[in-house]
Amino acid sequence: MKVKIARLSGYCFGVKRALELTEAALEKYKNKNVKVYSIGQIIHNRGVIDDLNKKGLIIVENEDQIEPGSVFIVRSHGMSPEFINRIKKKGVKIVDTACPFVKGAQSKAKMLSKRGYHLVIIGNKNHPEVMSEMEHADKKNLTVIESPEDLKTFPRYGKIGVIMQTTQIKENAKSIISGLLDKAKEIRIENTICNVTENKQRITKELAQKADIMLIVGGKNSANTAHLAQISSKFNPDTYHIENYKEIDRKWFNNVSLVGISGGASTPRKDIKEVKEFIEKLK
Amino acid sequence: MKVKIARLSGYCFGVKRALELTEAALEKYKNKNVKVYSIGQIIHNRGVIDDLNKKGLIIVENEDQIEPGSVFIVRSHGMSPEFINRIKKKGVKIVDTACPFVKGAQSKAKMLSKRGYHLVIIGNKNHPEVMSEMEHADKKNLTVIESPEDLKTFPRYGKIGVIMQTTQIKENAKSIISGLLDKAKEIRIENTICNVTENKQRITKELAQKADIMLIVGGKNSANTAHLAQISSKFNPDTYHIENYKEIDRKWFNNVSLVGISGGASTPRKDIKEVKEFIEKLK
Repeated sequence: MKVKIARLSGYCFGVKRALELTEAALEKYKNKNVKVYSIGQIIHNRGVIDDLNKKGLIIVENEDQIEPGSVFIVRSHGMSPEFINRIKKKGVKIVDTACPFVKGAQSKAKMLSKRGYHLVIIGNKNHPEVMSEMEHADKKNLTVIESPEDLKTFPRYGKIGVIMQTTQIKENAKSIISGLLDKAKEIRIENTICNVTENKQRITKELAQKADIMLIVGGKNSANTAHLAQISSKFNPDTYHIENYKEIDRKWFNNVSLVGISGGASTPRKDIKEVKEFIEKLK
Repeated sequence: MKVKIARLSGYCFGVKRALELTEAALEKYKNKNVKVYSIGQIIHNRGVIDDLNKKGLIIVENEDQIEPGSVFIVRSHGMSPEFINRIKKKGVKIVDTACPFVKGAQSKAKMLSKRGYHLVIIGNKNHPEVMSEMEHADKKNLTVIESPEDLKTFPRYGKIGVIMQTTQIKENAKSIISGLLDKAKEIRIENTICNVTENKQRITKELAQKADIMLIVGGKNSANTAHLAQISSKFNPDTYHIENYKEIDRKWFNNVSLVGISGGASTPRKDIKEVKEFIEKLK
């Protein structure tokens, strides 16, 4: 049984940067009696968040829990500019770990809104990245579209501006844009899918076509990991989305000669390595 | 045997207007010894052009043949602004019959070019409308795309602006735009397909699905008529593109209970009526 890890598996540049900035802040303030807060998960991986928690990160539910004079970490998916301004005024220092590609999408959302386009965000309605993009645009003049089905009830507009959640599946974006061509005379598309995401999806698809079984490693709440699992299972029905090696079932490996592994942008390299080592010991 | 003519068959608003303007000019100048010229067919229908010719229209091959002091008819598909300026300077009076929708597409082409987009015109390279749209844009920074196959050799650009020949098939435009999403980060689409064309294509498709045989009436060199024939034959293999009733073959009507007829935007109502009457006499 051979085990192959897809190229580009594990932390992307944006996640790496977010973790480095967070750890540097925790290190800097740990002996100064300054609290370091975040709201929600900085990246979508429980193990990593537990680890940061142990190093002093305080995860709160809402802004009232953030004390003046403390430090606040803006998560990799970005946050609302109004929220950031409010806590700044309270005397909170900001460490902004928002992914530069997400910031790019936010500024495209703002620009399209300002120019009078009805904004369409192709992405998951409840994902923090999409919510942060919505916060940068005119909320009264936007729609989040997850799939071509959503277009059934979508009316016509004078002009439509489109951005995409950075971890979108391009084929899904293409089908939605095809449908949008029936909805407006002018459509301006800003392809804000990040290149790394796109390449990783392609490489995962290629491996899924060759392997007998595919293991996609990463947080169940991680959009980009879920998309890898979705793409992989389209080309390989024996695809399993797991958070770590403990979820592996020995029965999966009957008559298997090639195991493919791919990991999301927020999956630590360590988790992927442990999966590989666990399978190699099965022989 | 029943015969049904598709709604919207025959002259569209733009063609009607072009013919009215041309006939008014011929009427006005016929007794004043002023020559009335055109280059190419004003609309793509031989019978109609022969008729205008008899009424005094002189069709020439190039601008040197146009005498100073004469009148020149700009065809419904539009012409190059440089050409129009040159003959104006020669003292030629212009009667501009260019379709307002084509003019809209020309001005979108110009605007996208000016704003630095690489212009993509979805249409037929050798069609006079597309050529007139090219003349309004930066010719060093544009590509005419006829089908998704053309994208195989199409490079990446910083930003792409898209217009469409007014008589394009929307499904073809959609496939091309899907492919263009791999070619640039920013794409601005101006859907310049005219509404009448789009509705007529839909109505023809619906009739083709019901009828046993379809007759598409209009000039063989008429892009919009050819597109109707293309759409019809996709849904009904017994589709015939004819210019007039003389091309009808009696053998086509064995075991036929419903005959569908549709006509292009440059097809005189008379031609369509003659086809219907000819078939009704076959019984």
